[in-house]
Amino acid sequence: MEQNLTPVSTLGEFGLIERLTENFNSKNESTIKAINDDSAVIHYDSGDTIVSTDMYVEGVHFDMVYTPLMHLGYKCIVGSISDIYAMNGTARQALVSLGISSRFTVEALEELYGGIQAACTKYGVDLVGGDTTTTKTGLVISVTVLGNANRDEICYRNGAKVGDIICVSGDLGGAYIGLQVLEREKRVFLEAPGARPDLAGFDYVLKRQLRPEARKDLVEIFKSEKIKPTSMIDISDGLASEIMHISSQSGVGCMIYEDKIPIDENTYNTALDFNLDPTLCALSGGEDYELLFTLDPADYEKIKNSPDITAIGDITNKGSGYKITTKSDNVYDLKAQGWKHF
Amino acid sequence: MEQNLTPVSTLGEFGLIERLTENFNSKNESTIKAINDDSAVIHYDSGDTIVSTDMYVEGVHFDMVYTPLMHLGYKCIVGSISDIYAMNGTARQALVSLGISSRFTVEALEELYGGIQAACTKYGVDLVGGDTTTTKTGLVISVTVLGNANRDEICYRNGAKVGDIICVSGDLGGAYIGLQVLEREKRVFLEAPGARPDLAGFDYVLKRQLRPEARKDLVEIFKSEKIKPTSMIDISDGLASEIMHISSQSGVGCMIYEDKIPIDENTYNTALDFNLDPTLCALSGGEDYELLFTLDPADYEKIKNSPDITAIGDITNKGSGYKITTKSDNVYDLKAQGWKHF
Repeated sequence: MEQNLTPVSTLGEFGLIERLTENFNSKNESTIKAINDDSAVIHYDSGDTIVSTDMYVEGVHFDMVYTPLMHLGYKCIVGSISDIYAMNGTARQALVSLGISSRFTVEALEELYGGIQAACTKYGVDLVGGDTTTTKTGLVISVTVLGNANRDEICYRNGAKVGDIICVSGDLGGAYIGLQVLEREKRVFLEAPGARPDLAGFDYVLKRQLRPEARKDLVEIFKSEKIKPTSMIDISDGLASEIMHISSQSGVGCMIYEDKIPIDENTYNTALDFNLDPTLCALSGGEDYELLFTLDPADYEKIKNSPDITAIGDITNKGSGYKITTKSDNVYDLKAQGWKHF
Repeated sequence: MEQNLTPVSTLGEFGLIERLTENFNSKNESTIKAINDDSAVIHYDSGDTIVSTDMYVEGVHFDMVYTPLMHLGYKCIVGSISDIYAMNGTARQALVSLGISSRFTVEALEELYGGIQAACTKYGVDLVGGDTTTTKTGLVISVTVLGNANRDEICYRNGAKVGDIICVSGDLGGAYIGLQVLEREKRVFLEAPGARPDLAGFDYVLKRQLRPEARKDLVEIFKSEKIKPTSMIDISDGLASEIMHISSQSGVGCMIYEDKIPIDENTYNTALDFNLDPTLCALSGGEDYELLFTLDPADYEKIKNSPDITAIGDITNKGSGYKITTKSDNVYDLKAQGWKHF
């Protein structure tokens, strides 16, 4: 261990938690008691409580070779609060549990918590609890996020109706392409240690992979425009998998138009460099944390000029199945690659 | 893999979750939406929301050599809801995230979920969400539990006052002694594979270790007797560590009497067989999930005849420090071994 780095064992569990959380201050009125007791205490003056949990595992969700800890902390919060926005709710509190191996120093964990804090601050979320333990091998991060929404505003996956417009925020496939760039540079590095990674020109896709953002802004637009999506989901596993969740739970079919799928130029060109089909990256790439939602046509009229929202298809009847119309005007069944971890 | 066992990969993430959770039915009115969406939705008609999270790691918190998966699932729920009872609240909902390696079969995970379900049913808790992912090595279980309580009933760690009576539920040290028995039989087994474990006569301590219970009954007694502990904590790290948390956060001292510490006969005798000091097992053993609390003397009068609650000491002024009076009438400083994982 380098000089000036502090082994976690010198602090113990309680000292470690105290050190990592000393700069966190709660901002939400709903946070009655944060950290330092058996449980946190929360009170929302209005609406229902929304809660979601995600687990991030080293070697599965992230590779320590090219993932800065600051970004990792940020991304874990973003990926988790995205589930609250996907319900059309407001994220308010987070609990973060860490499983760490002895190779992590206090300074490394402070970096991780720096990223957690940056995301909490940006999205107005209070860190209210967690757990810390050792693991035999890699890093495991479990994040639980709580938020609230009025019951009649909550968007489930099962409310899409025939004739609804399928919309998506931002652009897709970037996070997956960013991952390909990082994996390529890792291979180069492993073959020739000392080689400097060549990341120039990939800023956009790298940011999409390493430091994504969640679409809190969209939930705010829905509120101000008095729009309620008939269904909504966040895109963590790829567009195809997510639209099939919505369609299957809603008991409807869907038609996506390939030429409407929003793909950033940097994503598009880099995909081609990698001999990858940009559309396939958007359909199956995942980790974009954009929101996929269906709108009644009347609601769609209210936001159709928003530059950051794209209509990509229509909800059809169940018998029509889950389809995509390609740029060459062929119609294919959508295929969900979905979860690639097993 | 033996015949008739199903690799997780045949189901995929969503099929797996569906299979594991198909027998779970929500019972609490406060559970508005469970599983199957981005988040769960909860609404408590009264009180504050209490939330806590714990992470359980293979090789750190449990050893698959001697831990039946059914018991493991049960224990993870119990250990987590214990934190809600320690706030004097009622546990209502749980979210369970699993990190599993490919060696686990669907049938093994069904056993784990059988234990989770048994605990949820016994304690009236609804499973409302979670996450499932792979790990490179062992099993990681992250449990988040939510519950509620009226704000004026919530017990924190920081309310103990000079003159309060320090009480504990049940008896202590059993879980630690149960672990010693299991570790001994594991060593025997590793030295002579095929040797049958000799567990006769250890039923009580083994149950304390493998299938502990949480003290929901105590919270109900407090309510019916109109008692509010001035402070409360659950004993997961050992009596010494926990009473020092209460004392330090309350800004007071404490005096524990060794001869008052409740230790079951089976625990006591087995400790001596292992050449261990039974008192030390109670002070530093952990995992008993009993409740440690402080009562105003007037409240103590109301439950002093309860066979399952023992007064073990007094809250003193801060300057007196954290002390124990031994059976031989010597006074020593309490030492918290606390967390042994790092």
